[in-house]
Amino acid sequence: MDRQSWKYLSEINNPADLKKIDESLLPDVCDELREFIIDAVSVNPAHLGASLGVVELTVALHYVFNTPDDKLVWDVGHQAYGHKILTGRRDVFHTNRKQHGISGFPKMSESEYDAFGVGHSSTSISAALGMAVAAKMKGLYNRHHIAVIGDGAITGGMAIEALNNAGVNNPNLLIILNDNGIAIDKNVGALKEYLANIATSKIYNRFKDKIWHLLGGGTKYGANTRAIVKQVGNAVKGSILTKSNLFEAFNFRYFGPVDGNDVLKLTKLLRDIKDITGPKLLHIVTIKGKGLEMAEKQPVIYHAPPSTFDKKTGELINNDVDHQQVPPNYQIVFGKTIIELALQNPKIIGITPAMPTGCSLDLMMKQMPHRVFDVGIAEQHAVTFAAGLATEGFLPFCNIYSTFMQRAYDQLIHDVALQKLNVVFCLDRAGLVGEDGPTHHGAFDLAYLRAIPELTICSPMNEQELRDMMYTAQLNDKGPFVIRYPRGKGVMTNWQLPFSEIEVGKGRIVRQGKDVAIISIGHIGNEVIKACHELEKKEITITHVDIRFLKPLDNDLLINIFRDYSNIVTVEDGTIKGGLGSAVIELMNKEGFNSTVVSLGIPDKFIEHGTQRQLWNDCGYDAVGIENIVLRLIKKIKAS
Amino acid sequence: MDRQSWKYLSEINNPADLKKIDESLLPDVCDELREFIIDAVSVNPAHLGASLGVVELTVALHYVFNTPDDKLVWDVGHQAYGHKILTGRRDVFHTNRKQHGISGFPKMSESEYDAFGVGHSSTSISAALGMAVAAKMKGLYNRHHIAVIGDGAITGGMAIEALNNAGVNNPNLLIILNDNGIAIDKNVGALKEYLANIATSKIYNRFKDKIWHLLGGGTKYGANTRAIVKQVGNAVKGSILTKSNLFEAFNFRYFGPVDGNDVLKLTKLLRDIKDITGPKLLHIVTIKGKGLEMAEKQPVIYHAPPSTFDKKTGELINNDVDHQQVPPNYQIVFGKTIIELALQNPKIIGITPAMPTGCSLDLMMKQMPHRVFDVGIAEQHAVTFAAGLATEGFLPFCNIYSTFMQRAYDQLIHDVALQKLNVVFCLDRAGLVGEDGPTHHGAFDLAYLRAIPELTICSPMNEQELRDMMYTAQLNDKGPFVIRYPRGKGVMTNWQLPFSEIEVGKGRIVRQGKDVAIISIGHIGNEVIKACHELEKKEITITHVDIRFLKPLDNDLLINIFRDYSNIVTVEDGTIKGGLGSAVIELMNKEGFNSTVVSLGIPDKFIEHGTQRQLWNDCGYDAVGIENIVLRLIKKIKAS
Repeated sequence: MDRQSWKYLSEINNPADLKKIDESLLPDVCDELREFIIDAVSVNPAHLGASLGVVELTVALHYVFNTPDDKLVWDVGHQAYGHKILTGRRDVFHTNRKQHGISGFPKMSESEYDAFGVGHSSTSISAALGMAVAAKMKGLYNRHHIAVIGDGAITGGMAIEALNNAGVNNPNLLIILNDNGIAIDKNVGALKEYLANIATSKIYNRFKDKIWHLLGGGTKYGANTRAIVKQVGNAVKGSILTKSNLFEAFNFRYFGPVDGNDVLKLTKLLRDIKDITGPKLLHIVTIKGKGLEMAEKQPVIYHAPPSTFDKKTGELINNDVDHQQVPPNYQIVFGKTIIELALQNPKIIGITPAMPTGCSLDLMMKQMPHRVFDVGIAEQHAVTFAAGLATEGFLPFCNIYSTFMQRAYDQLIHDVALQKLNVVFCLDRAGLVGEDGPTHHGAFDLAYLRAIPELTICSPMNEQELRDMMYTAQLNDKGPFVIRYPRGKGVMTNWQLPFSEIEVGKGRIVRQGKDVAIISIGHIGNEVIKACHELEKKEITITHVDIRFLKPLDNDLLINIFRDYSNIVTVEDGTIKGGLGSAVIELMNKEGFNSTVVSLGIPDKFIEHGTQRQLWNDCGYDAVGIENIVLRLIKKIKAS
Repeated sequence: MDRQSWKYLSEINNPADLKKIDESLLPDVCDELREFIIDAVSVNPAHLGASLGVVELTVALHYVFNTPDDKLVWDVGHQAYGHKILTGRRDVFHTNRKQHGISGFPKMSESEYDAFGVGHSSTSISAALGMAVAAKMKGLYNRHHIAVIGDGAITGGMAIEALNNAGVNNPNLLIILNDNGIAIDKNVGALKEYLANIATSKIYNRFKDKIWHLLGGGTKYGANTRAIVKQVGNAVKGSILTKSNLFEAFNFRYFGPVDGNDVLKLTKLLRDIKDITGPKLLHIVTIKGKGLEMAEKQPVIYHAPPSTFDKKTGELINNDVDHQQVPPNYQIVFGKTIIELALQNPKIIGITPAMPTGCSLDLMMKQMPHRVFDVGIAEQHAVTFAAGLATEGFLPFCNIYSTFMQRAYDQLIHDVALQKLNVVFCLDRAGLVGEDGPTHHGAFDLAYLRAIPELTICSPMNEQELRDMMYTAQLNDKGPFVIRYPRGKGVMTNWQLPFSEIEVGKGRIVRQGKDVAIISIGHIGNEVIKACHELEKKEITITHVDIRFLKPLDNDLLINIFRDYSNIVTVEDGTIKGGLGSAVIELMNKEGFNSTVVSLGIPDKFIEHGTQRQLWNDCGYDAVGIENIVLRLIKKIKAS
């Protein structure tokens, strides 16, 4: 696309430029911004639907408020592409999510307009409240603080904790509830129904009309706005009683619902409510994927289209020439395998906190809907709900992305492990996830899980191992059982093989060599295989152990390794501090051996975004990195 | 007290026995149960106020429901003493919280009446929902599932996540909201005000009267109950609109508020609403500490009286003969020191999730109320709220018990560490806490924190070190800074000494010896000192390093130790897997040294309750355990 063709956008380098445009032309600006986003994402796959839905909101917010002095916090951040484009990042937007390019999420170090870094859900109200309280303490009474949060994210527990706290601190805080009925998958839960009820109930439509009439209808009231709003509030309260609205129960003034895809309505309304002090919530209804027909119709797929697509029709351009020849994603292996197991074992239940499509539990949902629970964005609840089911003899497979498991760490310890309950945790997206970057890497799970007593922790090197681990986990009473596997594809094309039980706590020898031993856990072991091939060309042979279980560790196998090898390399797609490397070294020390152990894994820093392969390389544990370490060790041997 | 004097209780060995008593006599049973609890706690300090408040509820629940078949989950569990006494544990109740005695909390392994183990707040709805969903799947349509949760605990995020999920699963679930306005400290937040509003609002009192009239007033309706309740519901809904109540927004039928200290009202009401299917919430208002005047008047102190007390007057029997001669609790050092620092440094803010008295931030609250925020039972929010304040240049000291920090692990990583924000985390109750037992031990923090990049992690060996660490943390921009310290007393009587800065990442040598090196972190180093004294009597001298910082580690100091000592012992009041021991061994391996390192700390299992000293001894890291390990190492040296 020719940059010259952007009539408005090419002139907008920051919100001040936007403000120069006549308000009546904002719908045209929105059209252009929407087209820009579609264009960009059509050739550089990324999140799409959420940003399309909030184009009008984004323009209205930057038009009415004084960012970056006013603080704008986007919850999750999937939806902030328009925000990035309007705040100086238009010309670098083609680098979105690419290594050394801009982040797919708001990020404080990237722009002063990104008031708070996000990625995980439901943090925005807490952060914006902190800023609002800070403003009060600094005497910045006219500064505004805005949290934009979806109807899915607001059901996350910490968002409600923040609402409860905001209601008593009288902050200058505006929450914009972006209600599109969709999180990544369809939003679920009682609150969703409640919001839908509000949006259609007569009283709130009457309220809406009234406030429009009084505030936005033709004349503006200026200094009288506050008094008028109060009058409106009282009228409504009079008719439906004190605190009749959920948000009013939290001491928020509630406005809405209004059409969030009408930019002129939004600018007027925002201008009118902006100077009402205290906590307020504006409920807007938007259409996810707005402006791209296929994205509107299939919001789950177009949340983040899996490939490039035709920017006019939205049709996906599938690059996999022959599906049969490509190994499946691990999530598909999980999704299909749990169905096979559930058909055999009536105790098995599937649980996901709002990620059925992302983890492929949607497959089981279709086939046996009563045995799968999407509990919403609620990792904490997911885990303790699973614990409750387990007390009754059911066997929940609780699928949570590794990075989101951090949200339920306490519940895993306190409700599951301490009570030795039979719950299987399948941690998808473990290890470096690639383009989503530091907020989403599943970097810490091996370390934070290993400290917990009673857990079994394992990780498959390929599709078959994942299947067999899942099969094993559901045999007898295994107690809490964690299986962690990465984002992306495995290595087998013919993977739906018969199940076989894996002995818990037993590793396997993948290859027997003599020069150096490499101990790996999980999929990254395939990089070890490649390294071994290269090393063999140089006549260096490796004993490669796929340890499979981080806990219990295969002490017998490892002791043999310590005995036979003076040079050992450990490889894991997880932080080095506290994970497999630590476990191996601890055991070696305890058993009195003195081999040289080099631990490869994620170093002790946050890893930025890039492709998985780029990041593995940067962290030194792809095949090349592994080979280099071995060569260095061999050199040392020769030198000594 | 003479057991013969318990007219009713001595005949009640289980709820079936309770059911034999005529309903009209239940008030007398309640009186006795209350007296029994007061008697027991007056001589064996434990939680008090919460159990006194729910005596009537406890009796009514076991009278009306069919426990243990019906599932009764107590949130937190402070309040379950009456439950324990009525369910077969009367005669062992004097062992409450003592080593090998009964637990201070419900515990599945202790009794079939304890449907779910608790300790941390806000888990009950998730767990009971899991059981209720299980019942549906098993076809147990008549089984009841009851979660008893306080007005503080219900503001915890995961409780709301569970409400949201329960509202769409149509479980046979009864939530009893025990509203006494008090968590451990006074409950805070908008919901508290909301509940108070409900309790005094006309419409709900009218509702209450109506339902009483229709359901409980004289005649019982039997089979018609459901129809009648529906009629009442419709009447109320008609007058105040659909979903006008917060809980109704979550699809719960709301009943109440009613006087929760009126056992006869409760039994009638519970019987009437018990067979209404679907999710329902009964809001009861109780008085915490009910029946002991001083406990009613001072609910915060009598939540868990700190000493034995006179069972008639409630007066505390203080055993500390001379306060001046006793070292203070670490929490007091924190509470007084933060005031000193805040007076000098206007950036400092105090934050506590519902524990102002427990962590001693109540002192600062009194002196500078605008600079302390009690955010309610909301660890997740507390951390991200602190992050928001930090983006504005404030320096929050966020005080969270180590065990509760598990609740905010993700926020610590995602919102604070990743953004390198200046937040100081003071983790009180780190290490083994004693009588509260496995749910409350701060066992895992060193391990789960060490994996996080950008953190500074330290632990003071005494009062002065805590002061100096707090002082150091607030100098310049230190990034995220964690100071963890234990429950209980330090070792210094004269501790309010001038501040001095500690170099970050530098340990200190407490004692120089020659035979063995001991590296300790935190207060447990005082046990090392004792061990060294004993060992010196045996002519064994020790080099004792107080490493102070787990991260960054003092590599230089440690390398010198590795060089000079072939026998090293590490000592920490935390899990061995992943903590200081691991860190030391990892460094040693990396630097190519081969000393024998023995790591003392919490073994890889859950530790039951007992006094701190008993537990340190059991785990082998009190002075005796340390001495023994050294003697064993010395023996090995001599033998070799």
